Amino acid sequence: MDCLFCKIINREIPADIVHEDDEVLAFNDINPQAPTHVVIVPKRHIATLNDIEEDDLALVGRLQYTAARLAKERGFADDGYRVVMNCNDQGGQTVYHIHMHLMGGRRFTWPAG
Amino acid sequence: MDCLFCKIINREIPADIVHEDDEVLAFNDINPQAPTHVVIVPKRHIATLNDIEEDDLALVGRLQYTAARLAKERGFADDGYRVVMNCNDQGGQTVYHIHMHLMGGRRFTWPAG
Repeated sequence: MDCLFCKIINREIPADIVHEDDEVLAFNDINPQAPTHVVIVPKRHIATLNDIEEDDLALVGRLQYTAARLAKERGFADDGYRVVMNCNDQGGQTVYHIHMHLMGGRRFTWPAG
Repeated sequence: MDCLFCKIINREIPADIVHEDDEVLAFNDINPQAPTHVVIVPKRHIATLNDIEEDDLALVGRLQYTAARLAKERGFADDGYRVVMNCNDQGGQTVYHIHMHLMGGRRFTWPAG
């Protein structure tokens, strides 16, 4: 499958991986927008948020859970952080494998883009 | 409990509710930042993303699932949208009951705040 994130998951393309478990992989964003900017992806390919099915809910929730875990590890969980998912072109999605952006280490403005 | 969103869920405070099921409530943001700006909350009180436990993953994933469902209903799922969750002060969290912002109907910039 010609998917950048699947290739990272399969170790066909290098990435700065910061967390891996059976279901999820997380790696540093190559164009960071905050002191911590990690991309968290399910290992199973799902193209967009529109493609989530009822059977996927725990997998999708694990993205937030992983974000919180990384925030705690890095020491900014109490100060705060933002998680963002973009769907399709107007949302700003550039890789069509669902992913959560975890951004922390600075204050975030509103609205979120 | 002195939680604004719990009061909305319990119909003690009015809100412009756009979706309800056994686990989740969604209502229009009172200070919208996009043509569609809906706040999606679990009915069960969880203060911040840091408080999510493994048992909560499907409930949390249902926030994204509900966002996608609403985007489809409103006709902007294919064009795209953004979902955001803020944790604690630096993230921009103002109500301490976890909630997902669904924003659609316009193009979103990067970074997300």
